[in-house]
Amino acid sequence: MKFLIPKGTRDFSSIEILNRNFLIKTIQNGFLKFGFCPIETPSFENVSTFTGKYGKEGECLIFKIINSGNSLKKGLSNFTKKNINNIDEYSLINHISNKALRYDLTVPFIRYISTNKNKIIFPFRRYQIQPVWRAENPQKGRFREFYQCDADIITPINSSSLWEEVEFFKLCDFIFNKLNIPTIIYINHIDILKGLAELSNIKKTLWKDFIRSLDKLGKIGKDLVKKEMIQKGISLKSINKIETLLNIKGKFFEKKNILNKLFKYSVNGKKGIKDINLIYKTIKNISLKKTVIKWDISLSRGINYYTDTIWEIVPFFDKKKSNNMFSIGGGGRYNKLTNLFGIKNFSGIGTSFGLDRIYIIMEEKKLFHTNIHNFYPAKVMFINFGYEETLHAYKIINHLREIGISTQLYPNSINISKQFKYAHNNNIPFVIIIGKKEIEKNKIKIKDIKNKKEKEFDNINDLINQLK
Amino acid sequence: MKFLIPKGTRDFSSIEILNRNFLIKTIQNGFLKFGFCPIETPSFENVSTFTGKYGKEGECLIFKIINSGNSLKKGLSNFTKKNINNIDEYSLINHISNKALRYDLTVPFIRYISTNKNKIIFPFRRYQIQPVWRAENPQKGRFREFYQCDADIITPINSSSLWEEVEFFKLCDFIFNKLNIPTIIYINHIDILKGLAELSNIKKTLWKDFIRSLDKLGKIGKDLVKKEMIQKGISLKSINKIETLLNIKGKFFEKKNILNKLFKYSVNGKKGIKDINLIYKTIKNISLKKTVIKWDISLSRGINYYTDTIWEIVPFFDKKKSNNMFSIGGGGRYNKLTNLFGIKNFSGIGTSFGLDRIYIIMEEKKLFHTNIHNFYPAKVMFINFGYEETLHAYKIINHLREIGISTQLYPNSINISKQFKYAHNNNIPFVIIIGKKEIEKNKIKIKDIKNKKEKEFDNINDLINQLK
Repeated sequence: MKFLIPKGTRDFSSIEILNRNFLIKTIQNGFLKFGFCPIETPSFENVSTFTGKYGKEGECLIFKIINSGNSLKKGLSNFTKKNINNIDEYSLINHISNKALRYDLTVPFIRYISTNKNKIIFPFRRYQIQPVWRAENPQKGRFREFYQCDADIITPINSSSLWEEVEFFKLCDFIFNKLNIPTIIYINHIDILKGLAELSNIKKTLWKDFIRSLDKLGKIGKDLVKKEMIQKGISLKSINKIETLLNIKGKFFEKKNILNKLFKYSVNGKKGIKDINLIYKTIKNISLKKTVIKWDISLSRGINYYTDTIWEIVPFFDKKKSNNMFSIGGGGRYNKLTNLFGIKNFSGIGTSFGLDRIYIIMEEKKLFHTNIHNFYPAKVMFINFGYEETLHAYKIINHLREIGISTQLYPNSINISKQFKYAHNNNIPFVIIIGKKEIEKNKIKIKDIKNKKEKEFDNINDLINQLK
Repeated sequence: MKFLIPKGTRDFSSIEILNRNFLIKTIQNGFLKFGFCPIETPSFENVSTFTGKYGKEGECLIFKIINSGNSLKKGLSNFTKKNINNIDEYSLINHISNKALRYDLTVPFIRYISTNKNKIIFPFRRYQIQPVWRAENPQKGRFREFYQCDADIITPINSSSLWEEVEFFKLCDFIFNKLNIPTIIYINHIDILKGLAELSNIKKTLWKDFIRSLDKLGKIGKDLVKKEMIQKGISLKSINKIETLLNIKGKFFEKKNILNKLFKYSVNGKKGIKDINLIYKTIKNISLKKTVIKWDISLSRGINYYTDTIWEIVPFFDKKKSNNMFSIGGGGRYNKLTNLFGIKNFSGIGTSFGLDRIYIIMEEKKLFHTNIHNFYPAKVMFINFGYEETLHAYKIINHLREIGISTQLYPNSINISKQFKYAHNNNIPFVIIIGKKEIEKNKIKIKDIKNKKEKEFDNINDLINQLK
């Protein structure tokens, strides 16, 4: 019998937790210095909270939880009354599940605002570091349970400005500078994508499909993206046109000039260019330490709720190999998401960091410098010589722990060499020996496991000095 | 439209997170000082990992996750082939769900050992602080998502001893002393309950049922427990007999003497008394600061896997009101649980603290002393006077954040009194004013929100000195 861990999930050992905590603390410190406050939301939400927020494909990846007790019985009975001979899976799930694990942190955050709006002062800046769950096919850097680290600002429309975008890029730079990861932030604008769709004669009703398919360029490649667009009803002529447009190359100002001409009659396109231009101009005047901002007019984001600026963060260690790197974060502005939760005239904007992917990069690039033996499992182990000896030693054990020295007692008086072996294998640096002899002489004996030297002390203070 | 939070779950605000983090750190510090190392496991496990570990009633409270994609389609098709006209809910769930949210931290921990056994050195001491989920009916101190803080030791049978129990009681004392919560640890022994069941002529096959029903004494009361025992097939005569036995009162040694006589022919009973006696004797010789150990021969635990010592931790502030207090932790020894995961001849023992219940106690007793305004949301806010002014000020914003001062920039140049109001309502202590005038004079103006005093500085270092 094998007891396996579920597909796409991981156990974390002590050293992994140590490194993850270092990462979390660094990200958290960035959030705090930029004036974001922590909140947390439950692991699951009512299904209705998620509906219509991620697009069809996103919704398929949401983990649903089966109702319990009477609610399940009632749902099943209602279902069977209606569906006698044919089990339709969507209808069944609707009858037996009203809760789902969260898919991201943004939507639960907006639900949080809706639930707690009387207590909140706007502009509201929150950060949230919690796991999310997606029924993806696992691969490198893609898990079914993973941590997102999100910072968002919800601002009344008239208090909002592009300084928020700039602040988020500076925040990314602040954090990745501390982590020693050079990054490129690729930016684009939903309105530019809409403008390009307009120019390519893609019907307005298909713009969302176009934007969602385009997001898959990096994942499934150009040919499959084209195939998907055709399936969704976009004409081949439009696809060829948009391909040419997305291929416009050059420096920022060259691209800007070309698009400015093309967007002469596109309200969307002009709005997009105006925003991107102001962001670019501002960023030039603000020192970024480890981050480069690049405008990628083919950058898209698959999640339904983005309306304006969008970005993706990619590590950039080596010009040649940069294409192999996956994105370690992303974000964007969403101007209508709060409307769906009954909060009108607010603009939302936020960035998300993928903890697990940053971890992979840090490990590959050897950027962790934690020494597990400074932390775990203990500085001192007491040999167990039997009941009376241990009782005698326990006063010292108590004292060491009280003053902050992590201390183990071997649980039973087995063969002493086995006890030493345990300390050695566990990298416990000091072993304390209080047997009959030591008790008679009123001494405390200590052995340094590394250099195998022994010392005897008359009192606990001398022992403590040695340990410190 | 209302967007509600699911039944039995909670949002956490910044102040709640601050207090929770203080609690977690204190508990964590106790674990570390006693030589436990952290691990983490996924939020869900394969259903088979949980099966048979918690008893039927426990298993009913496990949240199951619906399979996704093809796995769901296949399961449903297999199910419909077999169940044409009748939907049996258990069979349906088995066909469409192979994952479940974790119900406790002990069973996933043993699965962890089974999965990672080649990397583990025994005795293995781990702690784990993570949420668990149970489909309970919510009430005060009972949630559907709550945090457990567990420490456990898995020891080869011959290395194990009752010092492990003693160490866990000392650990509880260490932690609750730091939290300033006086506690009683009620202890008992599964073998004593078995001995009592023997004396009452309860059939051996019903002992587990008896132990599980007895655990509900505090929750549902004597009469309903009796009713449940009868339903499970325990005779009224046995129930009356056991009621008399469980009512044995007196000091520790009085109870011990009475039971010693009664258990003359009970191997189980004698083993239980011997263990409890040794623990009692040892504890007397070890100083506990804020904890009293009491033997309660009617104490039981509902989870299937305990085999020896069991305990429950109850806060004890006031003699008269102590009955109102719920348990804030518990634990016990489980000698056969690892067998179920293919690891033989190991003894497990552990204690669990209920973070959310400790939180409630700490709040009721006003034991939190955190001042949110020392942390959130920022020490300084910059007034936004418009694009050029903000660009000028941004160098200072950058600098303050770099040296660790949390700093906000108001996102847009709206009416200045509104910006001040935001800072005031958010308890941001200082506002920095760099408008056209200040830029011309090359000054930095700062306003203390509380005393409304303004000051001007010539350079950033003077500003920093003021802020520190």
